[in-house]
Amino acid sequence: MSGDKAVVLLSGGMDSATAAAWARARWPWVGALSVDYGQRHAFELQAARRVAESLKLSEHRVIKVDLRAFGGSALTDELAVPKNRENIGEGIPVTYVPARNTVLLALLLAYAETRGARHLVMGANVLDYSGYPDCRPDFLRAFQRVANLGTKAGREGAGFEVHAPLLHLTKAGIVCLGYQLGLAFELTFSCYDPPEEGIHCGACDACRLRRQGFAEANLPDPTRYAT
Amino acid sequence: MSGDKAVVLLSGGMDSATAAAWARARWPWVGALSVDYGQRHAFELQAARRVAESLKLSEHRVIKVDLRAFGGSALTDELAVPKNRENIGEGIPVTYVPARNTVLLALLLAYAETRGARHLVMGANVLDYSGYPDCRPDFLRAFQRVANLGTKAGREGAGFEVHAPLLHLTKAGIVCLGYQLGLAFELTFSCYDPPEEGIHCGACDACRLRRQGFAEANLPDPTRYAT
Repeated sequence: MSGDKAVVLLSGGMDSATAAAWARARWPWVGALSVDYGQRHAFELQAARRVAESLKLSEHRVIKVDLRAFGGSALTDELAVPKNRENIGEGIPVTYVPARNTVLLALLLAYAETRGARHLVMGANVLDYSGYPDCRPDFLRAFQRVANLGTKAGREGAGFEVHAPLLHLTKAGIVCLGYQLGLAFELTFSCYDPPEEGIHCGACDACRLRRQGFAEANLPDPTRYAT
Repeated sequence: MSGDKAVVLLSGGMDSATAAAWARARWPWVGALSVDYGQRHAFELQAARRVAESLKLSEHRVIKVDLRAFGGSALTDELAVPKNRENIGEGIPVTYVPARNTVLLALLLAYAETRGARHLVMGANVLDYSGYPDCRPDFLRAFQRVANLGTKAGREGAGFEVHAPLLHLTKAGIVCLGYQLGLAFELTFSCYDPPEEGIHCGACDACRLRRQGFAEANLPDPTRYAT
Protein backbone atom coordinates (compact mmCIF):
# COMPACT_ATOMS: atom_id res chain seq x y z
CA MET A 1 0.00 0.00 0.00
CA SER A 2 1.43 3.34 -1.03
CA GLY A 3 1.09 6.67 0.78
CA ASP A 4 1.56 8.35 -2.61
CA LYS A 5 -1.64 6.99 -4.10
CA ALA A 6 -5.18 8.22 -3.68
CA VAL A 7 -8.55 7.24 -5.09
CA VAL A 8 -11.49 9.60 -5.34
CA LEU A 9 -15.22 9.19 -5.90
CA LEU A 10 -16.09 11.28 -8.95
CA SER A 11 -19.77 11.72 -9.71
CA GLY A 12 -19.32 14.63 -12.08
CA GLY A 13 -20.91 17.14 -9.71
CA MET A 14 -19.06 20.20 -8.42
CA ASP A 15 -18.33 18.74 -4.96
CA SER A 16 -16.66 15.54 -6.14
CA ALA A 17 -14.79 17.45 -8.87
CA THR A 18 -13.42 19.87 -6.26
CA ALA A 19 -12.41 16.92 -4.06
CA ALA A 20 -10.63 15.37 -7.07
CA ALA A 21 -8.79 18.64 -7.78
CA TRP A 22 -7.77 18.75 -4.11
CA ALA A 23 -6.40 15.18 -4.31
CA ARG A 24 -4.61 15.97 -7.60
CA ALA A 25 -2.72 18.79 -5.87
CA ARG A 26 -1.63 16.47 -3.06
CA TRP A 27 -0.67 13.03 -4.41
CA PRO A 28 1.25 11.99 -7.54
CA TRP A 29 -1.14 9.14 -8.37
CA VAL A 30 -4.90 9.76 -8.24
CA GLY A 31 -7.41 7.27 -9.61
CA ALA A 32 -11.06 8.29 -9.99
CA LEU A 33 -14.03 5.99 -9.58
CA SER A 34 -17.48 6.76 -10.95
CA VAL A 35 -20.31 4.53 -9.87
CA ASP A 36 -23.16 4.05 -12.30
CA TYR A 37 -25.94 3.11 -9.89
CA GLY A 38 -28.80 3.44 -12.33
CA GLN A 39 -29.01 7.23 -12.40
CA ARG A 40 -31.82 8.62 -14.45
CA HIS A 41 -29.51 10.31 -16.94
CA ALA A 42 -25.98 9.71 -18.19
CA PHE A 43 -24.95 13.39 -18.14
CA GLU A 44 -23.31 13.00 -14.73
CA LEU A 45 -21.03 10.21 -15.96
CA GLN A 46 -20.10 12.22 -19.05
CA ALA A 47 -19.24 15.15 -16.79
CA ALA A 48 -17.09 12.85 -14.62
CA ARG A 49 -15.16 11.74 -17.71
CA ARG A 50 -14.54 15.34 -18.79
CA VAL A 51 -13.45 16.39 -15.28
CA ALA A 52 -11.04 13.40 -15.00
CA GLU A 53 -9.45 14.34 -18.34
CA SER A 54 -9.26 18.02 -17.46
CA LEU A 55 -7.55 17.28 -14.12
CA LYS A 56 -5.18 14.78 -15.82
CA LEU A 57 -6.06 12.08 -13.27
CA SER A 58 -3.96 8.90 -13.48
CA GLU A 59 -6.97 6.70 -14.22
CA HIS A 60 -10.75 6.82 -14.39
CA ARG A 61 -12.88 3.72 -13.83
CA VAL A 62 -16.64 3.32 -14.06
CA ILE A 63 -18.36 0.51 -12.18
CA LYS A 64 -22.02 -0.43 -12.58
CA VAL A 65 -24.21 -1.33 -9.63
CA ASP A 66 -27.87 -1.50 -10.45
CA LEU A 67 -29.43 -0.21 -7.22
CA ARG A 68 -32.73 0.01 -9.13
CA ALA A 69 -33.02 -3.70 -8.34
CA PHE A 70 -34.07 -2.50 -4.85
CA GLY A 71 -35.93 0.73 -5.57
CA GLY A 72 -36.54 3.34 -2.89
CA SER A 73 -35.34 6.74 -4.20
CA ALA A 74 -36.42 9.44 -6.64
CA LEU A 75 -32.91 9.47 -8.14
CA THR A 76 -33.10 5.85 -9.26
CA ASP A 77 -36.87 5.28 -9.41
CA GLU A 78 -39.33 6.94 -11.74
CA LEU A 79 -40.64 9.30 -9.05
CA ALA A 80 -40.69 13.04 -9.55
CA VAL A 81 -37.74 15.12 -8.35
CA PRO A 82 -39.05 17.91 -6.10
CA LYS A 83 -38.71 21.44 -7.48
CA ASN A 84 -38.36 24.69 -5.55
CA ARG A 85 -39.26 23.01 -2.28
CA GLU A 86 -39.29 24.95 0.96
CA ASN A 87 -36.93 24.07 3.80
CA ILE A 88 -34.08 22.95 1.56
CA GLY A 89 -31.40 21.31 3.70
CA GLU A 90 -33.86 20.20 6.37
CA GLY A 91 -34.83 16.56 6.85
CA ILE A 92 -33.85 13.65 4.66
CA PRO A 93 -34.85 14.34 1.04
CA VAL A 94 -36.71 11.88 -1.22
CA THR A 95 -33.65 11.95 -3.47
CA TYR A 96 -31.90 9.91 -0.78
CA VAL A 97 -30.46 6.69 -2.24
CA PRO A 98 -30.50 3.81 0.28
CA ALA A 99 -27.13 3.46 2.04
CA ARG A 100 -25.60 5.37 -0.87
CA ASN A 101 -22.32 6.50 0.62
CA THR A 102 -21.80 3.15 2.35
CA VAL A 103 -22.11 1.44 -1.04
CA LEU A 104 -19.96 4.07 -2.79
CA LEU A 105 -17.21 3.97 -0.15
CA ALA A 106 -17.23 0.16 -0.14
CA LEU A 107 -16.63 0.16 -3.90
CA LEU A 108 -13.98 2.88 -3.54
CA LEU A 109 -12.26 0.74 -0.91
CA ALA A 110 -12.25 -2.30 -3.21
CA TYR A 111 -10.77 -0.12 -5.97
CA ALA A 112 -8.15 1.34 -3.59
CA GLU A 113 -7.10 -2.09 -2.43
CA THR A 114 -6.50 -3.36 -5.97
CA ARG A 115 -4.41 -0.26 -6.78
CA GLY A 116 -2.45 -0.21 -3.52
CA ALA A 117 -3.82 3.25 -2.75
CA ARG A 118 -3.99 4.35 0.87
CA HIS A 119 -6.09 7.49 0.63
CA LEU A 120 -9.84 7.45 0.00
CA VAL A 121 -11.19 10.86 -0.99
CA MET A 122 -14.79 11.96 -1.33
CA GLY A 123 -16.65 15.24 -1.62
CA ALA A 124 -18.98 14.70 1.36
CA ASN A 125 -20.09 17.94 2.90
CA VAL A 126 -21.80 18.50 6.21
CA LEU A 127 -22.98 22.13 6.38
CA ASP A 128 -25.30 22.24 3.41
CA TYR A 129 -25.45 18.48 3.10
CA SER A 130 -29.14 18.56 2.26
CA GLY A 131 -30.12 15.95 4.84
CA TYR A 132 -28.10 12.88 3.87
CA PRO A 133 -27.11 11.00 7.06
CA ASP A 134 -24.14 9.38 5.33
CA CYS A 135 -22.28 12.70 4.85
CA ARG A 136 -21.44 13.17 8.53
CA PRO A 137 -18.03 13.04 10.26
CA ASP A 138 -18.93 10.20 12.64
CA PHE A 139 -20.08 8.11 9.68
CA LEU A 140 -16.83 8.73 7.80
CA ARG A 141 -14.73 7.80 10.85
CA ALA A 142 -16.75 4.61 11.31
CA PHE A 143 -16.19 3.71 7.66
CA GLN A 144 -12.43 4.23 8.02
CA ARG A 145 -12.49 1.66 10.82
CA VAL A 146 -14.38 -0.80 8.62
CA ALA A 147 -11.80 -0.23 5.86
CA ASN A 148 -8.90 -1.03 8.15
CA LEU A 149 -10.49 -4.05 9.80
CA GLY A 150 -12.01 -5.51 6.68
CA THR A 151 -9.14 -5.60 4.21
CA LYS A 152 -5.83 -7.33 3.77
CA ALA A 153 -4.15 -3.98 3.07
CA GLY A 154 -5.69 -2.32 6.12
CA ARG A 155 -4.68 -5.19 8.43
CA GLU A 156 -1.14 -5.42 7.13
CA GLY A 157 -0.27 -1.89 6.07
CA ALA A 158 -0.16 1.64 7.35
CA GLY A 159 -3.92 1.92 7.24
CA PHE A 160 -6.47 3.57 4.99
CA GLU A 161 -7.41 7.18 5.51
CA VAL A 162 -10.79 8.59 4.51
CA HIS A 163 -10.52 12.23 3.46
CA ALA A 164 -13.48 14.54 3.05
CA PRO A 165 -11.80 17.90 2.34
CA LEU A 166 -15.12 19.70 1.77
CA LEU A 167 -16.73 18.40 4.95
CA HIS A 168 -16.97 21.73 6.76
CA LEU A 169 -17.19 24.04 3.76
CA THR A 170 -20.28 25.88 2.61
CA LYS A 171 -21.19 25.67 -1.07
CA ALA A 172 -19.57 29.09 -1.48
CA GLY A 173 -16.43 27.75 0.21
CA ILE A 174 -16.39 24.85 -2.24
CA VAL A 175 -16.66 27.28 -5.16
CA CYS A 176 -13.70 29.28 -3.73
CA LEU A 177 -11.58 26.16 -3.21
CA GLY A 178 -12.37 24.91 -6.71
CA TYR A 179 -11.39 28.26 -8.21
CA GLN A 180 -8.12 28.25 -6.24
CA LEU A 181 -7.34 24.76 -7.58
CA GLY A 182 -8.10 25.83 -11.15
CA LEU A 183 -11.13 23.57 -11.53
CA ALA A 184 -13.11 24.08 -14.74
CA PHE A 185 -16.57 24.28 -13.14
CA GLU A 186 -18.24 24.45 -16.55
CA LEU A 187 -17.35 20.75 -16.99
CA THR A 188 -19.21 19.70 -13.84
CA PHE A 189 -22.88 18.76 -13.72
CA SER A 190 -25.17 18.91 -10.67
CA CYS A 191 -28.78 18.85 -11.84
CA TYR A 192 -31.11 16.04 -10.68
CA ASP A 193 -33.54 16.57 -13.55
CA PRO A 194 -31.90 18.22 -16.59
CA PRO A 195 -34.27 19.36 -19.39
CA GLU A 196 -31.58 18.60 -21.99
CA GLU A 197 -27.89 17.73 -22.24
CA GLY A 198 -25.64 20.32 -20.64
CA ILE A 199 -28.56 22.37 -19.27
CA HIS A 200 -29.31 22.62 -15.52
CA CYS A 201 -33.01 22.87 -14.60
CA GLY A 202 -32.29 25.57 -12.00
CA ALA A 203 -35.11 24.44 -9.67
CA CYS A 204 -34.07 21.14 -8.03
CA ASP A 205 -32.19 21.18 -4.69
CA ALA A 206 -28.84 20.55 -6.38
CA CYS A 207 -29.27 23.41 -8.87
CA ARG A 208 -30.38 25.86 -6.22
CA LEU A 209 -27.44 25.03 -3.92
CA ARG A 210 -25.09 25.30 -6.91
CA ARG A 211 -26.36 28.71 -8.02
CA GLN A 212 -26.40 30.02 -4.46
CA GLY A 213 -22.79 28.85 -3.97
CA PHE A 214 -21.47 30.90 -6.88
CA ALA A 215 -23.57 33.90 -5.85
CA GLU A 216 -22.39 33.83 -2.23
CA ALA A 217 -18.76 33.30 -3.29
CA ASN A 218 -19.17 36.30 -5.58
CA LEU A 219 -17.46 34.39 -8.38
CA PRO A 220 -18.63 33.87 -12.00
CA ASP A 221 -21.11 31.01 -12.45
CA PRO A 222 -20.46 29.33 -15.83
CA THR A 223 -23.59 27.14 -15.53
CA ARG A 224 -26.39 27.22 -18.10
CA TYR A 225 -29.71 27.17 -16.20
CA ALA A 226 -33.11 26.64 -17.85
CA THR A 227 -34.86 28.95 -15.39
CA MET B 1 -38.07 -0.39 10.23
CA SER B 2 -39.44 -3.70 11.42
CA GLY B 3 -37.94 -6.07 13.99
CA ASP B 4 -39.78 -8.88 12.22
CA LYS B 5 -37.85 -8.56 8.98
CA ALA B 6 -34.42 -9.89 8.10
CA VAL B 7 -32.26 -9.91 5.01
CA VAL B 8 -29.56 -12.46 4.35
CA LEU B 9 -26.61 -12.69 1.97
CA LEU B 10 -27.08 -15.88 -0.01
CA SER B 11 -24.18 -16.99 -2.18
CA GLY B 12 -25.39 -20.53 -2.67
CA GLY B 13 -22.61 -22.06 -0.57
CA MET B 14 -23.29 -24.15 2.52
CA ASP B 15 -22.45 -21.37 5.01
CA SER B 16 -24.79 -18.73 3.62
CA ALA B 17 -27.52 -21.37 3.12
CA THR B 18 -27.22 -22.40 6.77
CA ALA B 19 -27.38 -18.72 7.82
CA ALA B 20 -30.52 -18.31 5.69
CA ALA B 21 -32.12 -21.38 7.30
CA TRP B 22 -31.25 -19.92 10.71
CA ALA B 23 -32.92 -16.61 9.79
CA ARG B 24 -35.97 -18.45 8.38
CA ALA B 25 -36.50 -20.13 11.76
CA ARG B 26 -36.35 -16.79 13.55
CA TRP B 27 -38.21 -14.09 11.58
CA PRO B 28 -41.48 -14.19 9.63
CA TRP B 29 -40.08 -12.15 6.70
CA VAL B 30 -36.68 -13.06 5.26
CA GLY B 31 -35.39 -11.60 2.01
CA ALA B 32 -32.29 -13.06 0.38
CA LEU B 33 -29.74 -11.11 -1.61
CA SER B 34 -27.30 -12.72 -4.03
CA VAL B 35 -24.55 -10.56 -5.42
CA ASP B 36 -23.27 -11.40 -8.86
CA TYR B 37 -19.80 -9.86 -8.65
CA GLY B 38 -18.43 -11.43 -11.80
CA GLN B 39 -17.86 -14.93 -10.48
CA ARG B 40 -16.28 -17.31 -12.90
CA HIS B 41 -19.30 -19.59 -13.07
CA ALA B 42 -23.03 -19.18 -12.60
CA PHE B 43 -23.50 -22.40 -10.60
CA GLU B 44 -23.35 -20.54 -7.30
CA LEU B 45 -26.23 -18.23 -8.27
CA GLN B 46 -28.29 -21.18 -9.47
CA ALA B 47 -27.64 -22.88 -6.13
CA ALA B 48 -28.73 -19.70 -4.32
CA ARG B 49 -32.00 -19.71 -6.27
CA ARG B 50 -32.68 -23.35 -5.39
CA VAL B 51 -31.87 -22.80 -1.72
CA ALA B 52 -34.13 -19.72 -1.51
CA GLU B 53 -37.02 -21.73 -3.00
CA SER B 54 -36.39 -24.71 -0.77
CA LEU B 55 -36.37 -22.53 2.37
CA LYS B 56 -39.50 -20.67 1.17
CA LEU B 57 -37.82 -17.29 1.69
CA SER B 58 -40.08 -14.26 1.26
CA GLU B 59 -38.04 -12.85 -1.62
CA HIS B 60 -34.81 -13.43 -3.51
CA ARG B 61 -33.00 -10.60 -5.31
CA VAL B 62 -29.87 -10.71 -7.42
CA ILE B 63 -27.76 -7.60 -7.88
CA LYS B 64 -24.87 -7.28 -10.31
CA VAL B 65 -21.63 -5.53 -9.39
CA ASP B 66 -18.85 -6.11 -11.83
CA LEU B 67 -15.82 -6.16 -9.52
CA ARG B 68 -13.80 -7.48 -12.49
CA ALA B 69 -13.57 -3.81 -13.49
CA PHE B 70 -10.88 -3.63 -10.77
CA GLY B 71 -9.26 -7.06 -10.94
CA GLY B 72 -7.17 -8.45 -8.08
CA SER B 73 -8.48 -11.92 -7.20
CA ALA B 74 -8.42 -15.48 -8.54
CA LEU B 75 -12.19 -15.72 -8.05
CA THR B 76 -12.93 -12.91 -10.46
CA ASP B 77 -9.78 -12.82 -12.62
CA GLU B 78 -8.58 -15.51 -14.97
CA LEU B 79 -5.91 -16.71 -12.54
CA ALA B 80 -5.69 -20.36 -11.49
CA VAL B 81 -7.49 -21.45 -8.31
CA PRO B 82 -4.96 -23.27 -6.07
CA LYS B 83 -5.55 -27.00 -5.61
CA ASN B 84 -4.61 -29.15 -2.62
CA ARG B 85 -2.45 -26.40 -1.16
CA GLU B 86 -0.68 -26.91 2.14
CA ASN B 87 -1.49 -24.72 5.17
CA ILE B 88 -5.16 -24.27 4.30
CA GLY B 89 -6.62 -21.65 6.61
CA GLU B 90 -3.31 -19.85 7.10
CA GLY B 91 -2.60 -16.45 5.58
CA ILE B 92 -4.82 -14.57 3.16
CA PRO B 93 -5.59 -16.72 0.11
CA VAL B 94 -5.32 -15.57 -3.52
CA THR B 95 -9.08 -16.21 -3.79
CA TYR B 96 -9.54 -13.08 -1.64
CA VAL B 97 -11.83 -10.57 -3.37
CA PRO B 98 -10.90 -6.95 -2.54
CA ALA B 99 -13.03 -5.60 0.28
CA ARG B 100 -15.55 -8.30 -0.53
CA ASN B 101 -17.59 -8.42 2.67
CA THR B 102 -17.58 -4.62 2.95
CA VAL B 103 -19.10 -4.42 -0.54
CA LEU B 104 -21.53 -7.29 0.14
CA LEU B 105 -22.68 -5.86 3.48
CA ALA B 106 -23.07 -2.37 1.98
CA LEU B 107 -25.38 -3.81 -0.69
CA LEU B 108 -27.23 -5.88 1.92
CA LEU B 109 -27.71 -2.70 3.96
CA ALA B 110 -29.14 -0.84 0.96
CA TYR B 111 -31.51 -3.77 0.36
CA ALA B 112 -32.50 -3.89 4.05
CA GLU B 113 -33.24 -0.18 4.09
CA THR B 114 -35.59 -0.37 1.11
CA ARG B 115 -37.47 -3.29 2.70
CA GLY B 116 -37.62 -1.84 6.21
CA ALA B 117 -35.68 -4.83 7.54
CA ARG B 118 -33.70 -4.43 10.73
CA HIS B 119 -31.66 -7.61 10.78
CA LEU B 120 -28.69 -8.21 8.48
CA VAL B 121 -27.62 -11.86 8.41
CA MET B 122 -24.53 -13.38 6.86
CA GLY B 123 -22.70 -16.68 7.05
CA ALA B 124 -19.30 -15.24 8.06
CA ASN B 125 -17.27 -17.72 10.04
CA VAL B 126 -14.13 -17.10 12.05
CA LEU B 127 -12.63 -20.44 13.02
CA ASP B 128 -12.00 -21.95 9.64
CA TYR B 129 -12.39 -18.65 7.84
CA SER B 130 -9.56 -19.44 5.44
CA GLY B 131 -7.77 -16.16 6.03
CA TYR B 132 -10.33 -13.54 5.02
CA PRO B 133 -9.89 -10.47 7.25
CA ASP B 134 -13.48 -9.38 6.66
CA CYS B 135 -14.99 -12.38 8.48
CA ARG B 136 -13.92 -11.26 11.95
CA PRO B 137 -16.09 -10.13 14.88
CA ASP B 138 -14.47 -6.69 15.20
CA PHE B 139 -15.09 -6.05 11.49
CA LEU B 140 -18.76 -7.02 11.80
CA ARG B 141 -19.23 -4.76 14.83
CA ALA B 142 -17.58 -1.88 12.97
CA PHE B 143 -19.89 -2.43 10.01
CA GLN B 144 -22.95 -2.38 12.28
CA ARG B 145 -21.83 1.06 13.44
CA VAL B 146 -21.49 2.24 9.84
CA ALA B 147 -24.99 0.91 9.12
CA ASN B 148 -26.53 2.84 11.98
CA LEU B 149 -24.66 6.09 11.33
CA GLY B 150 -24.99 6.03 7.56
CA THR B 151 -28.68 5.45 6.95
CA LYS B 152 -31.97 7.19 7.49
CA ALA B 153 -33.40 4.02 9.06
CA GLY B 154 -30.43 3.55 11.39
CA ARG B 155 -30.53 7.19 12.55
CA GLU B 156 -34.26 7.27 13.10
CA GLY B 157 -35.16 3.72 14.08
CA ALA B 158 -34.29 1.00 16.57
CA GLY B 159 -31.01 0.33 14.79
CA PHE B 160 -29.66 -2.34 12.47
CA GLU B 161 -28.21 -5.54 13.87
CA VAL B 162 -25.59 -7.56 12.02
CA HIS B 163 -25.94 -11.28 12.76
CA ALA B 164 -23.32 -13.87 11.95
CA PRO B 165 -24.76 -17.02 13.52
CA LEU B 166 -21.94 -19.25 12.23
CA LEU B 167 -19.15 -16.97 13.43
CA HIS B 168 -17.73 -19.31 16.05
CA LEU B 169 -18.72 -22.63 14.51
CA THR B 170 -16.36 -25.12 12.88
CA LYS B 171 -17.37 -26.45 9.45
CA ALA B 172 -18.60 -29.57 11.27
CA GLY B 173 -20.68 -27.34 13.55
CA ILE B 174 -22.19 -25.68 10.49
CA VAL B 175 -23.11 -29.08 9.04
CA CYS B 176 -24.77 -30.02 12.35
CA LEU B 177 -26.71 -26.75 12.53
CA GLY B 178 -27.82 -27.08 8.90
CA TYR B 179 -29.04 -30.62 9.53
CA GLN B 180 -30.95 -29.48 12.63
CA LEU B 181 -32.63 -26.76 10.56
CA GLY B 182 -33.55 -29.22 7.82
CA LEU B 183 -31.35 -27.62 5.18
CA ALA B 184 -31.09 -29.56 1.92
CA PHE B 185 -27.28 -29.46 1.62
CA GLU B 186 -27.42 -31.14 -1.80
CA LEU B 187 -28.81 -27.85 -3.18
CA THR B 188 -25.79 -25.84 -2.00
CA PHE B 189 -22.62 -25.33 -4.03
CA SER B 190 -19.16 -24.49 -2.65
CA CYS B 191 -16.56 -25.28 -5.32
CA TYR B 192 -14.29 -22.48 -6.61
CA ASP B 193 -13.49 -24.38 -9.82
CA PRO B 194 -16.17 -26.91 -10.78
CA PRO B 195 -15.32 -29.31 -13.65
CA GLU B 196 -19.00 -29.34 -14.72
CA GLU B 197 -22.43 -28.28 -13.49
CA GLY B 198 -23.35 -29.77 -10.15
CA ILE B 199 -19.93 -31.41 -9.65
CA HIS B 200 -17.47 -30.22 -6.97
CA CYS B 201 -13.77 -30.48 -7.90
CA GLY B 202 -12.88 -31.84 -4.46
CA ALA B 203 -9.44 -30.19 -4.44
CA CYS B 204 -9.89 -26.42 -3.93
CA ASP B 205 -9.95 -24.95 -0.40
CA ALA B 206 -13.75 -24.68 -0.37
CA CYS B 207 -14.25 -28.33 -1.42
CA ARG B 208 -11.76 -29.60 1.11
CA LEU B 209 -13.33 -27.66 3.99
CA ARG B 210 -16.77 -28.84 2.87
CA ARG B 211 -15.83 -32.51 2.73
CA GLN B 212 -13.96 -32.31 6.04
CA GLY B 213 -17.00 -30.67 7.68
CA PHE B 214 -19.33 -33.55 6.84
CA ALA B 215 -16.68 -36.11 7.83
CA GLU B 216 -16.02 -34.49 11.22
CA ALA B 217 -19.72 -34.02 11.88
CA ASN B 218 -20.14 -37.73 11.09
CA LEU B 219 -23.16 -36.93 8.94
CA PRO B 220 -23.91 -38.00 5.34
CA ASP B 221 -22.27 -35.82 2.66
CA PRO B 222 -24.62 -35.55 -0.35
CA THR B 223 -21.98 -33.74 -2.46
CA ARG B 224 -20.74 -35.13 -5.80
CA TYR B 225 -16.96 -34.66 -5.90
CA ALA B 226 -14.82 -35.22 -9.03
CA THR B 227 -11.90 -36.56 -7.01
